[in-house]
Amino acid sequence: MKPRSWAKAAVPNAASKVEALNLNPLLIRTEAPPIPEAKAWAAAYDGSRGPLIDLSQAVPGYPPHPDMLARLGAAAATREAASYGDILGDAALRARYAAHVSALYRARIAPDQVAITAGCNLGFVVAMMALAKAGDAVMLPCPWYFNHKMALDMLGIETVPIPCRAENGLVPHVADAERALGDRVRAVVLVTPNNPTGAVYPPATIAAFHAFCAEPRITLVIDETYRDFLPSNAPPHGLFADKSRCANLIQLYSFSKSYCIPGHRVGALVADPEAVGEIAKILDTLQICAPRAAQLVLPWAIPALADWRAGNRAEIARRADAFRAAMAALEGWEIASIGAYFAYVRHPYDGRSGAEICEWMARERGVLCLPGTYFGPGQEAFIRVAFANVDAAGIAELPARLSIGQARRAGTGKT
Amino acid sequence: MKPRSWAKAAVPNAASKVEALNLNPLLIRTEAPPIPEAKAWAAAYDGSRGPLIDLSQAVPGYPPHPDMLARLGAAAATREAASYGDILGDAALRARYAAHVSALYRARIAPDQVAITAGCNLGFVVAMMALAKAGDAVMLPCPWYFNHKMALDMLGIETVPIPCRAENGLVPHVADAERALGDRVRAVVLVTPNNPTGAVYPPATIAAFHAFCAEPRITLVIDETYRDFLPSNAPPHGLFADKSRCANLIQLYSFSKSYCIPGHRVGALVADPEAVGEIAKILDTLQICAPRAAQLVLPWAIPALADWRAGNRAEIARRADAFRAAMAALEGWEIASIGAYFAYVRHPYDGRSGAEICEWMARERGVLCLPGTYFGPGQEAFIRVAFANVDAAGIAELPARLSIGQARRAGTGKT
Repeated sequence: MKPRSWAKAAVPNAASKVEALNLNPLLIRTEAPPIPEAKAWAAAYDGSRGPLIDLSQAVPGYPPHPDMLARLGAAAATREAASYGDILGDAALRARYAAHVSALYRARIAPDQVAITAGCNLGFVVAMMALAKAGDAVMLPCPWYFNHKMALDMLGIETVPIPCRAENGLVPHVADAERALGDRVRAVVLVTPNNPTGAVYPPATIAAFHAFCAEPRITLVIDETYRDFLPSNAPPHGLFADKSRCANLIQLYSFSKSYCIPGHRVGALVADPEAVGEIAKILDTLQICAPRAAQLVLPWAIPALADWRAGNRAEIARRADAFRAAMAALEGWEIASIGAYFAYVRHPYDGRSGAEICEWMARERGVLCLPGTYFGPGQEAFIRVAFANVDAAGIAELPARLSIGQARRAGTGKT
Repeated sequence: MKPRSWAKAAVPNAASKVEALNLNPLLIRTEAPPIPEAKAWAAAYDGSRGPLIDLSQAVPGYPPHPDMLARLGAAAATREAASYGDILGDAALRARYAAHVSALYRARIAPDQVAITAGCNLGFVVAMMALAKAGDAVMLPCPWYFNHKMALDMLGIETVPIPCRAENGLVPHVADAERALGDRVRAVVLVTPNNPTGAVYPPATIAAFHAFCAEPRITLVIDETYRDFLPSNAPPHGLFADKSRCANLIQLYSFSKSYCIPGHRVGALVADPEAVGEIAKILDTLQICAPRAAQLVLPWAIPALADWRAGNRAEIARRADAFRAAMAALEGWEIASIGAYFAYVRHPYDGRSGAEICEWMARERGVLCLPGTYFGPGQEAFIRVAFANVDAAGIAELPARLSIGQARRAGTGKT
């Protein structure tokens, strides 16, 4: 069992791999996507404790709305969906999404501030390419979403960590960003509700980071993939209310989670209209257009499925409550942060890495979570739980699955 | 009417735009996608000569096969298509595509040499990120596909042109690459059949470029998006026949053109299996997975639509013949190269830029082509024609549309 490390020197045989494969050394030194490793742990589970409880990647346990599936089917059967669309996205979707964001943030966002991306991961890469070149730096609160770190590494952009503390509920503080700021920093990335930690950043924190960006003239990139799972209808922040603020602001969103359609690869980006004009160059080069079928359906879905999304939000709030109860029933486990979709918990096995604990949980107890070590340095004590994947009944099984005492009593010999 | 230039200094107000928008200067200096400019010319056409004949972007004029549309619809209506897939693509599609490529090239390509990309543009960016970092250089035969140049510019990778000559049918020569090679070159990109020129590179030329790459240990990237429109069933080249050669070879392909499904965004990449393992990091970061619906249908379509593709190939060969006849009927127009999908023609208006001619053709005569200036420096004398977009009857209209004498005789006053 190898604890995962983010230190570049720790990638095995990087120098000899560069030589043998003759590839970009930045790529060789980029960490591999960690999910396959975790999936291999789960694959080794023998099923003796019941079906696998998969709390690893964010994958809603419920299906898309049946009308959504029917409309996706009807759209994909058309010649229109098979054809190229506009670089920045279908006009109907850009307009509908602009109206939706305007209502949500009590602001006026115009369609020309919207770009449709082939998923939110691509949206992040596009934002980074728009803001920074190799040799520049970007600040990421740590722990971070591993694909963000991988994107920066392979583009030759330095990651400057903003440490988040469990005692602050994993919410970053501007003072820590000020200490780490250097000349080469071009952007600060906030993910709220956060992946991996679930922490929901208060509007005041978001405003403080935006104010922090003003003087060094850097851009705030705010990834709000999980905002539809926030417990309240209040605007998540007030940055859009002052429209002039869009000049050093890029917001990212994904339709994957809220509409349960990650396989269709559609996300959205909101920025200053002139910046969107420049970003069109990147989108044309990387994607030409986002996949069309879901673009044809989302202008209907955004308003039509509002109640369905609200129902899911309530369901996921119940799952959060179930998860709190499950952790309370387990000795020594402690929730460091919990929010829209994820929880970040401290495991009780001092001195042992979360990777070791997650492997044990997956192989022996059929519970797949991701170790904190997947999300940056100094995270050995933590485990990331996508509690929203599983219903309350499934979550209620966790104490029995994870209790060491009970396993011993059960005499399975599998501890 | 501004002739388009690829000189970096020619981008208007780059320095002030960098300052005002606070974006990556490499992006500001990257040329904008040219297609919208050409579409604006066509939008200004008054229809007086008949419907617009659009020979600009490669967009097959015929629809996808009806069974393909029906299956895309059925697939997109499933929960499976809405779900994440494997980073490197659906196993069934990788296996089927590997078998298809193996048969086509009389070689043995294994599924672990295949990665499915969200379109071939993304495949190209992925290949570049795998091979080169900012400050490195990549060789492109000139004229080039403008998105390739844009990708390199925004990544900070220098483009080293390999000049192609009309007297050689726009096929690049290794001697020209040898002259231009420098220490920083990491790859040579060949597009065959070529976009923009239509030139089909002979197997001997491809082999010579691969041999050229061996000593400086650089990689040959070969984009074969248009190979299904080649006139013959012979293997387009022999590079895969010696499997060991995959070590410094990346092949790109797009399902968009052959299956008429660009809106579904699916392409494929073939490389050394270890390189594919590294490329998975980029794919995970940029796309997570390629869109699923088309991935679910293509394992059926690759064998089932073989006859349909052969029929389209024959149809497009007829269009090429019609285009040759149309050019022969026009005084002073000369085909410099013609191949699978495109032709590159020398216009008869010496001293005037192709951009000027294309704007006139679009606005006044309702014929939309792209000027050679979109594809690199020194291309003022040329116009690129996607003849395969339009059937033989439409192509037969070109002499009447483009003849100046006839227009004068018709007394339209629009010349």
